[in-house]
Parts: sequence; structure tokens; C-alpha cells
Amino acid sequence: MTHALVLNCTLKPSPAPSSCALLAQQVLDALADHDVSGEQLRIADFDVKPGVDKDMGDGDEWPGIRAKILAADILVLATPTWMGHMSSIAQRVLERLDAELSETDDAGRPILAGKVAVAVVLGNEDGAHAITADLFQGLGDVGYSIPSQGGVYWNGEAMHTVDYNDLPETPEKVAQTTATLARNTAHLAKLLRAQPYPAP
Amino acid sequence: MTHALVLNCTLKPSPAPSSCALLAQQVLDALADHDVSGEQLRIADFDVKPGVDKDMGDGDEWPGIRAKILAADILVLATPTWMGHMSSIAQRVLERLDAELSETDDAGRPILAGKVAVAVVLGNEDGAHAITADLFQGLGDVGYSIPSQGGVYWNGEAMHTVDYNDLPETPEKVAQTTATLARNTAHLAKLLRAQPYPAP
Amino acid sequence: MTHALVLNCTLKPSPAPSSCALLAQQVLDALADHDVSGEQLRIADFDVKPGVDKDMGDGDEWPGIRAKILAADILVLATPTWMGHMSSIAQRVLERLDAELSETDDAGRPILAGKVAVAVVLGNEDGAHAITADLFQGLGDVGYSIPSQGGVYWNGEAMHTVDYNDLPETPEKVAQTTATLARNTAHLAKLLRAQPYPAP
Amino acid sequence: MTHALVLNCTLKPSPAPSSCALLAQQVLDALADHDVSGEQLRIADFDVKPGVDKDMGDGDEWPGIRAKILAADILVLATPTWMGHMSSIAQRVLERLDAELSETDDAGRPILAGKVAVAVVLGNEDGAHAITADLFQGLGDVGYSIPSQGGVYWNGEAMHTVDYNDLPETPEKVAQTTATLARNTAHLAKLLRAQPYPAP
Repeated sequence: MTHALVLNCTLKPSPAPSSCALLAQQVLDALADHDVSGEQLRIADFDVKPGVDKDMGDGDEWPGIRAKILAADILVLATPTWMGHMSSIAQRVLERLDAELSETDDAGRPILAGKVAVAVVLGNEDGAHAITADLFQGLGDVGYSIPSQGGVYWNGEAMHTVDYNDLPETPEKVAQTTATLARNTAHLAKLLRAQPYPAP
Repeated sequence: MTHALVLNCTLKPSPAPSSCALLAQQVLDALADHDVSGEQLRIADFDVKPGVDKDMGDGDEWPGIRAKILAADILVLATPTWMGHMSSIAQRVLERLDAELSETDDAGRPILAGKVAVAVVLGNEDGAHAITADLFQGLGDVGYSIPSQGGVYWNGEAMHTVDYNDLPETPEKVAQTTATLARNTAHLAKLLRAQPYPAP
Repeated sequence: MTHALVLNCTLKPSPAPSSCALLAQQVLDALADHDVSGEQLRIADFDVKPGVDKDMGDGDEWPGIRAKILAADILVLATPTWMGHMSSIAQRVLERLDAELSETDDAGRPILAGKVAVAVVLGNEDGAHAITADLFQGLGDVGYSIPSQGGVYWNGEAMHTVDYNDLPETPEKVAQTTATLARNTAHLAKLLRAQPYPAP
Repeated sequence: MTHALVLNCTLKPSPAPSSCALLAQQVLDALADHDVSGEQLRIADFDVKPGVDKDMGDGDEWPGIRAKILAADILVLATPTWMGHMSSIAQRVLERLDAELSETDDAGRPILAGKVAVAVVLGNEDGAHAITADLFQGLGDVGYSIPSQGGVYWNGEAMHTVDYNDLPETPEKVAQTTATLARNTAHLAKLLRAQPYPAP
């Protein structure tokens, strides 16, 4: 079965409420309609050491997360917006994925090639387009493919402070975008699993 | 008298309504409270040729705009948000300013050093923080100084289509930010005019 | 046959030499090894009006370019780096593609869904990662899919002024990246053509 | 005496060699020529908790760093380039500075207004212009002013792996840029200390 992993990069450990968790779960629910199973991890609940190796030692909990990343067909990277940028925790995830550039499968392909990535960005302040850009580029560099319209986001009007969590209901446009994203993501992940990129 | 020049980088020539024109005018009005005179130019009304020279010839209308830039103490660069980025016209302005990197005054300073720049960003879609970032970096590179809190922006909630022009009144937060920006910009411009950066 | 269209967004009209043209041609040559035909257009040779409609009238030459975009399976967007950003001409292409968001096929899919896009970025100054990011996000928004490692770039050491055109030979790393990009791009374009994204 | 604080945001704790430490020290040395004292902190040597409060408790070492930030006239933010972005540690510094937005002095000004910030970016890969942009915007938002040409960077040719640390000597262009940056930074910091931004 096609499997999706959410890495929720909120700065707040569980059980604090998280707008990222809510929208990411809506993405997982929409993926489930296309026979994709899913799991969420909140990175702030783990001790992910700074660095660019697969295992930084000394209690580093990245190796367990990495195993789940390698087992999933789809990566859903969910991040809040701070100062208009992805969170420090999302950037740390990218730094740790940097190690995969030198990892190849038996056929010589990057170990992440064949997997699909999408972006989920939340904020009360503006920043989602730029964060989506940075995520697509970083995740594409290490081997992920990006489906058509592979991002979903929400933020409020300029300089407002409402959170997605606080909205009385899911905005119609967000729900539509989530449905499109899930449909395209499931399709691309299944295609690439059945017919992988050719070896060099 | 300290003088400010707005370059409005909307894609629409006059007399089409422009949210950029409105917020930029509010900035000029706030600057007037600090004895700063001002003028707005809408770049789409001019034939600004692509290129990175001071004068691209062949009917290029940049030289006239350039003269006004050199005569002003303050540059207010106002741009709409398209695809999350500054407009192609704003980027063209940066490209044309690139020529100033090789222009120096008698003391060997970049010709734009001593001037102050601020960013005004409008959109119905998200992008203002990233555009402000790109403007500060580009304008800083060619010699402008950026005052404390030197940006003001407005955009609506995610995936909405309301324009700043359409709002029933100026949002309180935008008015406050505009006032702060004007106060700081006028102060910095006057300081740097009285006590210029030292020569190399 | 699978077909690729290069939009070269250099600021210089033909016949000026263009580093973008050179690296984009290397991409087309590598795609030809995978049975992909190709064509290059230099946008600076056309009168592409500012705006966000399919046809801005008044001599606008975008409609002819648009027809070629719609006929191609693969879009190769090639841009120089100015002030660390994509060229004003590349941003104009994105603005014009914005119109496609409201265009759908008979099944209700965005008209560009099913097509694949890649980024080619040249510069003597730094900026390629950020430009690649902005291109992936903008092109993904309007419906393109991004293959694994779908970007290739070259720039020189910090603050140097050598152009890609001036190099005595193609750097080995650039050639390898081009080959990988072409292999992945051809594969993804063929997959999506044979098995399109499902309709809503 | 005017005082500068470097926050070195390398991922590597002391005593690992750091290209950021080298270029940041060159900036401090150049500032010393203008009677500016200086100190470097390597953030990776401290336990800086994720969050956006002044003190996240539980062993958080940010409050000590914050005291030094508040005591300095000049902030030199030095970061490596990872995936084309500032390091996760640099982004964490911005997140922690976000708390200062709600801190004001007796006159109602943001507590950081009146201070000057500059960017130092190192990488073997491209990214410096975009990182400088993100730093100027983030630091400007919380109140810092950015001097004319307030950034210095180095990175190697595309896809090379040499570090600044490994260069046989400081490139001439980097040395020139550092000298200009220091001259302008010292001037602006002294001006703003003598004649602070007016209160609201």
C-alpha cells in the first residue's frame, strides 16, 4: 500500500495544539480516499541534532525518523511560518536530508528518487509561497518529485494573529486545494512506484 | 528639503486603479508630516528597456527616471505580488539600478550610498515578506540604507481575491506601520544627508 | 513524440551570445538521447506585454508563445541571475502563465497539469538555488510537475565575473547534473502523458 | 565605545573549524579599525530552545545571549548555507528575536531600534544573496537598521566543495567588501546612537 509520512515542524512539542497538525491531518484524510495510509510525526518531540550526517550520535533521534522517511512513498512536510520563513525545525529536517545526496540504491539512483513530496504551510503571517518554494527546491535537490499543485497553505490577512486552529470551519478554498493535492500526490506516487526513474 | 520618490511597479499603466499607488501615497502623506516632499512615478507608463546599462538607447525612458532617483534622498519601491514574487517591472527596476554599482561620487563612494530605501508590497495573495527581503537585499547591494522597520504591506487571507483598493478603510495595523516607517525613514535620510558615509 | 520547449529568459535579444542558450541547448541535447524533440525561444526577441491575461492585445506576442507552451510536454525555463533573482523576463513569463490557473481541460483539470517543468539557471553571481525555488513554486502552482532533481545551474565563485559561455569546457558536475535531469524529465513526462492525473 | 556582537550560526560546536568564524572575525577586525569593539558567540555551543519567547525555561541559554544582543550596538549574523538556505540555527536566532517585537523602551520604540545589523554568509554552495535577503528582512522587522552594502559573503563555483577556510588567502573582492561593510556599519551605528530614531 502507498504510504505517506507527515513531518510536522511546529516549534511546539506535543501535546500543544498545532495548526500544522490539523491541516496535515486533513491532507492525510484526503490521501486516505485514494488508498494511501499515513502517519504523523512531530519533530519537536524528538532530539534531532544539528548536522548533516545520517546519524550525529550522542542521543540523536534522527535515525528512527529517517527509517520512516525511507519506508514512505510520500513525504508531507508541514511547517509554520516564522519571520516569513520555514521554522528552524523544518530547516533542520532539510539539513539532515542533505546526507541522502550521497546515498544511492543498487542501481545508482539517489535513495529518495521515486518518492513524492508536498508542502503544507501555516501561519498567521505571510510567507507561504516563499516557504513552499524553498521546500520544493530542497526536497527536489535530494530526489523527491513534486506533483502538480503540490502545496497547500493558509494564513490570515496581513498582520492579523488568528491561527488556522482557531477558524470556525475549514475555508472552502483550502479544502479544495487539499483535495487536488491529495489526488495528484497519490497518482504520482503510484506511477513512480510502478515505473521508477531509470538508472544512470 | 528631503525628497522621496515612489516607483510604483504595478503591471497596469495609468489610469487603471492601483493598490500600490494607494498605499504608496499613504506613505508619502506620512512622510510629509516629517517635512519630506514626494512624487510618484508609475513605471508601466514608461518604456523601460530590459538590460543592465544606464541607458539602453532606442527610446529607453530609464534615463529620465534615473535622474529622479539620483535627485531623491528616499526611494519608495512599491510592487504588487504575482506568483508570490515582486512584479517583473520591479525586478526590471532592480536590473537597471545594477548599473549604479560601477558609478561612484568624487570621493569614491557608490553614487546611491547615503540614500534610504523602503518597501511597499501589496497583494491579494501571500508573498510580502519574501518580496521585502528581495528588495532590501537588492537595494542594499547598490548602496541604499534600510531604516528600522522599513517595510509596509498588505495582503488578504490565503487564496482570497480582495484588493487593498477595495477595503472599506485602511486597516489600523497598516496605518500604524506606515506611520512608523515614515518616522524612521525621514530620520535616517536626514541623518545620512547631514553626515554621509565616509569615503574609502 | 515527447516535446520540450525552452523559454530562454536572458535580457539580451538575438543574436547576442547567451549562457542560458548554451546550457539550455545542452539540456535539449541530453533530452534528445531519450527521444524528446526540442525547440528554443528567446523571449527577449518577442514583445511580451506586462499583464496577467492570455492576450494583452496591442501587438502582444505572448499568444504565439502560449500556443507552443500548450503543445509541449516539457517546459525548460532558463534564466540568468540578476541581483540574485530571476530576470524580469522570467518573472514576466510566470505572470503570463498565471492566466492558465483559470483554464481547464474537458475533464476539469488545469490545462497545464500533466506537463513537466525544469529550471536552468545561469549567473556569474550567486542566486541559483533561490531562483530554482521560485521557479518550482510558480510553475507548480499553475500545474506543472517537477521531476526528481529537476534543476541545473552554473555560477562562478563569489563576486567573479566569468560567464558560462566563457568556460573552456563544460564542468563535469554540470554535465552529470544535466544528464540526470534529462533522464528524469523524459521519464516523468512520458509517464504523465500515458497516465494523466485523474479528473476532480 | 561602539560594540559589535557576532552570532556565528554554524551547525558545528567549538572547537570545530568554521568558515563563518573566520569571515566574521575579519569583519570584527575591520570594525576595530573604526573603534568598534567586538565579541563572537557560536550559537551551537549553547542550548537555545525552540520557541518564540524571551526565555523558554528548562535550561534555555538564550537569555544570556539576549543580554549580549541588547548590550551591543551592532549585530553581525553569520551563517553557513545549507540547501541554499540559512542554517537552522540562524533561523532559530530569528525566531527568538521575534519576541523583541513586543518589547519597547521607555519612549515606546522597539527595544532593538537604533541598532545596526549586517549579514555574513558562507557556503561551498550557492545561496548567499537569498540568505542575505532573508536576514535583512527578518532583522529589519524586529528593528535593526541595515547600512549601505551591509552584507559580505563567499561561496565557490557551482557544485564545488571548497570551504572559505581552505582558501590559500582571502580573495581581494571579499577583503574589499569587508572593509566597505565595516566602514559603513561603524558610521551608521555611531549616528543612530548619537541621534536615535524619534519616539512615536
